[in-house]
Amino acid sequence: MASSAPSSSTPLRIIPLGGIGEIGKNMYVFEYGDDIVVVDCGLMFPDEEMFGIDLVVPDVTYLRTRREAVRAFVITHAHEDHVGGLPYVLPEFPGIPVYASTLARGLLGIKVKEHKLHNNPLLPLDPGNELEVGPFRITPFRIGHSIPDAMGLAIRTPVGTVVHTGDFKFDHTPVDGKPSDFGVLARLGAEGVICLLSDSTRAESPGYTPSERTVGEAFREIMEPLDGRVIVATFASNIARIQQVIDAAATFERQVAVVGRSMEQNVKIAAELGYLQFTPSRLITKDQIGSSAPGRLVIATTGAQGEPMAGLARMANRDHRHVEIQPGDTVIVSASPIPGNEEYVARTIDNLFKAGANVYYHAIRHAHVSGHASQEELKLMLVLTRPRHFIPMHGEFRMQVQHGRLAIETGVAPENVYIIENGQPIEFFADGTARRGAPVPAGYVFVDGLSVGDVGEIVLRDRRALAADGMFIVVVTVDKQTGTLIGRPEIVTRGFVSDERDLEASVETVIASIRTPGEHISEVALLKSQIKEAVSRHLFEQTRRRPMVFPVVVEV
Amino acid sequence: MASSAPSSSTPLRIIPLGGIGEIGKNMYVFEYGDDIVVVDCGLMFPDEEMFGIDLVVPDVTYLRTRREAVRAFVITHAHEDHVGGLPYVLPEFPGIPVYASTLARGLLGIKVKEHKLHNNPLLPLDPGNELEVGPFRITPFRIGHSIPDAMGLAIRTPVGTVVHTGDFKFDHTPVDGKPSDFGVLARLGAEGVICLLSDSTRAESPGYTPSERTVGEAFREIMEPLDGRVIVATFASNIARIQQVIDAAATFERQVAVVGRSMEQNVKIAAELGYLQFTPSRLITKDQIGSSAPGRLVIATTGAQGEPMAGLARMANRDHRHVEIQPGDTVIVSASPIPGNEEYVARTIDNLFKAGANVYYHAIRHAHVSGHASQEELKLMLVLTRPRHFIPMHGEFRMQVQHGRLAIETGVAPENVYIIENGQPIEFFADGTARRGAPVPAGYVFVDGLSVGDVGEIVLRDRRALAADGMFIVVVTVDKQTGTLIGRPEIVTRGFVSDERDLEASVETVIASIRTPGEHISEVALLKSQIKEAVSRHLFEQTRRRPMVFPVVVEV
Repeated sequence: MASSAPSSSTPLRIIPLGGIGEIGKNMYVFEYGDDIVVVDCGLMFPDEEMFGIDLVVPDVTYLRTRREAVRAFVITHAHEDHVGGLPYVLPEFPGIPVYASTLARGLLGIKVKEHKLHNNPLLPLDPGNELEVGPFRITPFRIGHSIPDAMGLAIRTPVGTVVHTGDFKFDHTPVDGKPSDFGVLARLGAEGVICLLSDSTRAESPGYTPSERTVGEAFREIMEPLDGRVIVATFASNIARIQQVIDAAATFERQVAVVGRSMEQNVKIAAELGYLQFTPSRLITKDQIGSSAPGRLVIATTGAQGEPMAGLARMANRDHRHVEIQPGDTVIVSASPIPGNEEYVARTIDNLFKAGANVYYHAIRHAHVSGHASQEELKLMLVLTRPRHFIPMHGEFRMQVQHGRLAIETGVAPENVYIIENGQPIEFFADGTARRGAPVPAGYVFVDGLSVGDVGEIVLRDRRALAADGMFIVVVTVDKQTGTLIGRPEIVTRGFVSDERDLEASVETVIASIRTPGEHISEVALLKSQIKEAVSRHLFEQTRRRPMVFPVVVEV
Repeated sequence: MASSAPSSSTPLRIIPLGGIGEIGKNMYVFEYGDDIVVVDCGLMFPDEEMFGIDLVVPDVTYLRTRREAVRAFVITHAHEDHVGGLPYVLPEFPGIPVYASTLARGLLGIKVKEHKLHNNPLLPLDPGNELEVGPFRITPFRIGHSIPDAMGLAIRTPVGTVVHTGDFKFDHTPVDGKPSDFGVLARLGAEGVICLLSDSTRAESPGYTPSERTVGEAFREIMEPLDGRVIVATFASNIARIQQVIDAAATFERQVAVVGRSMEQNVKIAAELGYLQFTPSRLITKDQIGSSAPGRLVIATTGAQGEPMAGLARMANRDHRHVEIQPGDTVIVSASPIPGNEEYVARTIDNLFKAGANVYYHAIRHAHVSGHASQEELKLMLVLTRPRHFIPMHGEFRMQVQHGRLAIETGVAPENVYIIENGQPIEFFADGTARRGAPVPAGYVFVDGLSVGDVGEIVLRDRRALAADGMFIVVVTVDKQTGTLIGRPEIVTRGFVSDERDLEASVETVIASIRTPGEHISEVALLKSQIKEAVSRHLFEQTRRRPMVFPVVVEV
């Protein structure tokens, strides 16, 4: 584990391997000489063109080539887009510790068990407690976000101090009573910050993001006049939101049933670790839902993004084991649709209405606030830390552009703002200068079923082609001796036309025309490519569609 | 064409065949005895689960069964979601006239030519001019929308007067100076309206939709300080918006180039018919773009929804024949993303920024207003027309629910509000009562390539399966006499795994195990189903994926 001695001209390299140009899959690499610390290791959910893919995790080819230099993984908070990649990445880095907050370690414990990640020690990361890893001295500081114990990082390096905000907002009245640590941010600004990496997710939104506490007020206003059941859907990891559901229920003497595997697990762990406060009788089990009076019940569940397999969508589709929506139910969708999920959310809300529920959702009533900072908060972060260089992180390109403009407005030199893509290192030197380094490999690794990485772009391209126009198999038998076709070609098609019988005769004619009868077919490969080309052309002329054509030639 | 004499108990039937539970494909049937008038005939674009489908048009099975009764198609305005289905529906109704406004007839002329719809006379429909069709007396009235000449319809029937709003908003300062006709609406309300059908698209939005004129002000504010090129993307059919682009360009002495086939066609027709006003030198051709000074140029183009084949996306991708985005360009995306298009729009904006443009878009600067009425306008429509019964039309289920609530707030009896699905008739009687009738067939017809309707749910289900996990062809040859397998099975796979060689040996073993060697295979079909089942199970166990497995058995 000995590092080669770095010289005074050794740069600090900051390399995003995720978190840029996409929601999710956050991963930043901090490299100084032969020491690397990795901050976060998230996953993202596939977009609509990644057919059949379950999850997307960062491509860690670069870390693999520098395996000996990796010293630690540091986790800012336990949301999936910051920790979900660990099960797929850690097995390549046995023995390397993972540092995380108490709550994050609790939630990660589930992953450790499920994925048997016992080769990586899970170590504490606490606000204010400095961690020394190689040449890095890392001080986590408390920052507001939609999960307790979220942290930003002050990373002291031989070339200067870097501030990594993690996901954040400035909530002056957080539900857990622990606001962001302005003191440490101001002190870092006074000491000098060579680079700030800050959360761009809401860089397009003017003003301030409202406090999480406002959601509790909305819950109470909605619940007050009701005498039916109340169902609240939110993120399983949003412990503060769940606390507010419980508190609102307590105001109206309702009991709370938590429904949904991930939310049940999280509530259990958060309660054990002291992150959720309630009297034990407040919570009831799923099995007690049926025997509760509607006016005495709140159900907390998952699926606020309309995910088809989660609690809310199943309830809406009358496909849930414990809860069936009934007239008189009131549903609060406590979330805004994440880009790409709009149609799922819309469909779920429509189905809830059809099942007879009344629904409060983003377009009608805000019972949700973001966990990310808006423009005024982003500017506050910039003026507190007063960085020399600035890397807008998290969020899509246009959001980084907006965030970069905010940085320039607050005094960062335009040439010191780096709108970069994943894999683009920025190198920082002891004299305070910085430059772009040579790009390293970065990208997507697809998780599909049991496998990680065996589905690549070619497989996806084929899936897209199959999805668009289906497939068309032509089986022909040829006599090995004479080269003549034997019998009639057999046709199998799927996803192409509803009735292929109309095409059988014409395809037979097309195949027959490929060669003079009796001509010897010496090359099966040649015959296949001729069939493929002729049949594809014929089908396109007939239908203006391009199914994938598979010629099967059997020699007998 | 003689109608059987209707009795005094004959109901008026209003049947939606489109326009409910979806954006687009609007079509309402008005039926009295043996006379039918069809209002609008739209198309919708496929959602993300309709793989490979080009367009979706209404299922007109019901009209087909009542072909002899269909007297007319009446068009409220020439947007695709109200007229796009005509080319696929009209050929089944030769000779039946289509009534439409002057502008709509102009724009429909393009479709008539392209689709050879010469068997249906295209007749005028003018505000205030009553049209008599069988027992229906139809008076179109002027209404505000994002296309000139949009109309609502007062339909006088033997059981009372129905008001169909078309798509509408109340714009008191419309760009063409022709506001909605409040007089006729108030008069209809005073006379008595048995049923109002009203546009629910923005029933979730409180307040008023701003005037189209505010967009022109935004254009001017954005353009004023600029000395580079300005590119404005909007809908090709939004003639009022294009007028405002031209007017703003005139303010700053810029010339306008219109780029994009559909927009060029529409501008030509609208100008010829007097719906666009400009001095001829204001417009330049695409070929003159290169020789224009950047500060003297505005480019108007299509693709504001991020459609991959339209002008803006191509410019963003450096794939446009006439315009390449360059640093210094300012792009105004004058639209809000339609649900389902969010990711296309986001990608296009990101690409424009990457190409060096500055972009004004919905999240940053509103240079767009909706063409649909918000809640206060919807309530105004309700109190003006004072209907006895109410059918919220256009828009998804939850929007209809909200619109129904507004109707009840303004005094419609809750039992007289009909939240219905396509194919659900509402029957109105002379005594002012109404009831739900027996549902008629309604749904989607898919247009894919050259065909209409030959792609059904089974084809789509197969496309979805192929998209998720790809396909796996197994070819085996058996001896017809002995029933034994000859040689090794051949495997072809696409969209399944990147490297199928790992699976070849194990699949071979699985197939060999299906039968005792030497056993006679009498039934090819049985062998096929055995192979399919055994290979599917094996592949799922190995990969947790379910490709479509196609066994091909060749007997020799």
